[in-house]
Amino acid sequence: MNGLMMQQPLLISSLLVHAERHHGEQQIVSRRVEGDIHRQTFREAAARSRRMAKALAALGVKPGERVATLAWNGYRHMELYYAVSGSGAVLHTLNPRLHPDQVVYIADHAEDQVLFFDLTFLPVIEAIAARVKTIKVFVAMTDRAHMPPATKIQGLLCYEDLIDAQDDRFVWPSFDENAASSLCYTSGTTGNPKGVLYSHRSTMLHTYAAALPDALNCSSRDVILPVVPMFHVNAWGLPYVACMVGARLVFPGPGLDGKSLHELFETERVTLSAGVPTVWQGLLAYVEANDLKFSTMRRTIIGGSACPPAMLRGFQEKYGVHVLHAWGMTEMSPLGTACTFKAKHTDMSQDERYAVQAKQGRAIFGVDMKIIGDDGNELPWDGKASGELLVRGPWIAAGYFKGEGGDPLIDGWFPTGDVATIDADGFMQITDRAKDVIKSGGEWIGSIDLENIAMAHPAVAMAACIAAHHPKWDERPLLVVVRKPAAQLTREELLAFFDGKIAKWWTPDDVVFVDAIPLGATGKMQKNKLREMFKEHKLPTA
Amino acid sequence: MNGLMMQQPLLISSLLVHAERHHGEQQIVSRRVEGDIHRQTFREAAARSRRMAKALAALGVKPGERVATLAWNGYRHMELYYAVSGSGAVLHTLNPRLHPDQVVYIADHAEDQVLFFDLTFLPVIEAIAARVKTIKVFVAMTDRAHMPPATKIQGLLCYEDLIDAQDDRFVWPSFDENAASSLCYTSGTTGNPKGVLYSHRSTMLHTYAAALPDALNCSSRDVILPVVPMFHVNAWGLPYVACMVGARLVFPGPGLDGKSLHELFETERVTLSAGVPTVWQGLLAYVEANDLKFSTMRRTIIGGSACPPAMLRGFQEKYGVHVLHAWGMTEMSPLGTACTFKAKHTDMSQDERYAVQAKQGRAIFGVDMKIIGDDGNELPWDGKASGELLVRGPWIAAGYFKGEGGDPLIDGWFPTGDVATIDADGFMQITDRAKDVIKSGGEWIGSIDLENIAMAHPAVAMAACIAAHHPKWDERPLLVVVRKPAAQLTREELLAFFDGKIAKWWTPDDVVFVDAIPLGATGKMQKNKLREMFKEHKLPTA
Repeated sequence: MNGLMMQQPLLISSLLVHAERHHGEQQIVSRRVEGDIHRQTFREAAARSRRMAKALAALGVKPGERVATLAWNGYRHMELYYAVSGSGAVLHTLNPRLHPDQVVYIADHAEDQVLFFDLTFLPVIEAIAARVKTIKVFVAMTDRAHMPPATKIQGLLCYEDLIDAQDDRFVWPSFDENAASSLCYTSGTTGNPKGVLYSHRSTMLHTYAAALPDALNCSSRDVILPVVPMFHVNAWGLPYVACMVGARLVFPGPGLDGKSLHELFETERVTLSAGVPTVWQGLLAYVEANDLKFSTMRRTIIGGSACPPAMLRGFQEKYGVHVLHAWGMTEMSPLGTACTFKAKHTDMSQDERYAVQAKQGRAIFGVDMKIIGDDGNELPWDGKASGELLVRGPWIAAGYFKGEGGDPLIDGWFPTGDVATIDADGFMQITDRAKDVIKSGGEWIGSIDLENIAMAHPAVAMAACIAAHHPKWDERPLLVVVRKPAAQLTREELLAFFDGKIAKWWTPDDVVFVDAIPLGATGKMQKNKLREMFKEHKLPTA
Repeated sequence: MNGLMMQQPLLISSLLVHAERHHGEQQIVSRRVEGDIHRQTFREAAARSRRMAKALAALGVKPGERVATLAWNGYRHMELYYAVSGSGAVLHTLNPRLHPDQVVYIADHAEDQVLFFDLTFLPVIEAIAARVKTIKVFVAMTDRAHMPPATKIQGLLCYEDLIDAQDDRFVWPSFDENAASSLCYTSGTTGNPKGVLYSHRSTMLHTYAAALPDALNCSSRDVILPVVPMFHVNAWGLPYVACMVGARLVFPGPGLDGKSLHELFETERVTLSAGVPTVWQGLLAYVEANDLKFSTMRRTIIGGSACPPAMLRGFQEKYGVHVLHAWGMTEMSPLGTACTFKAKHTDMSQDERYAVQAKQGRAIFGVDMKIIGDDGNELPWDGKASGELLVRGPWIAAGYFKGEGGDPLIDGWFPTGDVATIDADGFMQITDRAKDVIKSGGEWIGSIDLENIAMAHPAVAMAACIAAHHPKWDERPLLVVVRKPAAQLTREELLAFFDGKIAKWWTPDDVVFVDAIPLGATGKMQKNKLREMFKEHKLPTA
């Protein structure tokens, strides 16, 4: 016997309809590629999205077909989020930090029909336009005045022309909530990139869960600046969350340097931001060097990689910005855990609270997780036992687009490739990527712990710990370090810094100083490249 | 083309599974009918709910069958919420404040198979046991030691015996999320009571939306005491919300007097409560008379009827308890709006903020609303135009159990029977129940405004405004008032109190003082009874 409640599919378009109707005056502020600051209301965004939906239909885009973007965080990108998915087509966000060969591979694999791009990426598009197989239409996300005067791209269209050709009399179609809404490829370090195909249902449930007080805690009183790019896992869902709660959105466009970001934080009175640790390093360095502060920012979400404890303390103690440590992955839409306190933590000491905050946090409602040992059995939640982390929930991938990579699930659980502990309160902490664990004499050494200690040294800008070959122990930790500008630091000083902070046998066997650590397309340190660089490195202990 | 995300139905049992796994140590505290304070953890509650699910199966309860309760807010009632719905059966919460004849009618209409009841209600059960047609099993929600020594009820079972007979090795079944989960009859003042049949899907979506920062804003750091009964619209969903977010729950059982409630607020360090205005009057009177305060309570949700502005100010100014005004109805699961501030209200004056808080608030995400005029056309959101309020959303009824009352919808919208305004920011304010509006010379007078003014007078305990017959104007307002104990107040003094607070022609034509105003089964003033009582009342203006 079924309940007798209204049947309404969970559709992404409903977010924009709600935002227009209940938060019509709320603003979306964007730093444009064209250089200026642009402002429009949710009401205007909704009308323009409807016009773009009609333009897509006029271009012949059909439900289920893929429409690609290669774009920064901005209002036109947001309009496409709603126009494409809301129409029943699939928004495919391409990552401009990938090599053009990878972009071509991914666009072909996805069978993209249309490609929208920011002017920044015109050279990339010109390089690939003749190579991609299925894209018939290229659209520059700009107005007529800023269109490139000459281009090799045949029949290049102008975004604002498409909008101008339509009126906004359009009603979003209703369809099955399990329909695909968007597509994002994982930047896997091995094998071909694999596409994660989100549905309207998964996106909507993720949006509800992400906005909860124990997750990202977003309200209509927030001003949200997502530094995390809209081309990577939908900017952690924030363009959807903002419509659900009616929060003001501030998009940084291409201005991701410390100066541009800080200026926007201050002028737009941003209260909440989100990004990977490597982005914050640039911002904090700028703020520190110029003796600035954050007047309105109260919280920042840090994920993508573990937040070094030194960064966490810096944000909170120097700038009064609370750090919300979170964890997820492309296959998880992306949110899995958020490190919000439980009632029991309220009266703890500051150091005890920092120890909690260093963890990636608790499962947000809808996600379940477990850690398993080598035998596949679940390990205890004691904060000590460490095993591979498995997850499940309605916004977690059950497979990849076109079956790439086969069935990833283990008994219905998705294996994350992360190694983690979970404590008795359900707080999960990543100790390593499974492939980055250092296996020393049959025991595991977690590279993240060692990196966090190194990062706490005042002269260290960035540190990666990788396994180096050792004749006796098989693998031993090698620390690869970037010094802060003008900082003095020797190998011996840094190794001495580990004394008393960790078991003696975990201490790295060697340190090498480099000018830069290679970062991947999503801002993560590429340890596979480091392992390749240092595969012949001879440890002094060998 | 469908997305490739895990398919998991939205089931109520998942809330308890999450609470056990991620908040196992969190407590449920209950004042028992037996007289003492009982404590158990979510872990214990989950195990006992599984045992009860097995007991229900052993009693022969099948999926879709109705299992009734007649019970206070307490841990056993909560176990039944999950055991019954989680099993695939339908939890039917009966309202003990109804007349036994109505209880019999409703139990028969619902075809209840089993009835669980708190000992308080033994006399009612004894009176109706032989009359109800379908109930085969009666269970007293107590332990063996407290079972009634002699009863007319044949084969009366004991709740703790049922639990003791089972172990907790039970896995919640998976089934269609549209399956019925629970049933609640509206206490309609005219016609037969009508059953609202919730589904697992509607309940889960409602729970997500209710916990959001712009709705009830519930987190794992909250200690929630629902005064609103679990026998009425699932205590506004709080037993579900608490499991979703891992909040501590405090159940008052039968102790709804000011002294019992205040004691529990203080000893259990309650942070958030919820109830109808009439309940708070008793509590505030007790707190005031005994010069007490609230040490930990920071917020209270007031709904069911409009919160008189005087009560709102009293809570906030005297006791530092923020009032969250909310609105909904049985047919809405029940939440429709919550009065949380937007960013623009932050810098307003206290008086301006009070004016906002007096409204029932903004639609929570998932609910849409509109007001229509007599011609059925939508009225503007200007805070002035007043019309019937219509709503729609995935947790709003599309009809009643067994088709009772026919199809209630108007073009897919549910007509609430409330008359309201909506302002440009989307804040809705109920001006009246459609049937309570006073029609004076073709113009409408909202009775709630007049009641709010009367309630602001220090000598008034309760006030209801009804239409009285007038030979010239057809209807004119008559104020029915209960004075505070020992307070002096004349008709003339009270009428003078309206001067300057409202348009002159809205001033009531007369005042009558009564000892009590009849309250319905859900704590609302029964204006239909007052109209009956005063149908021969001769206005001095007539």
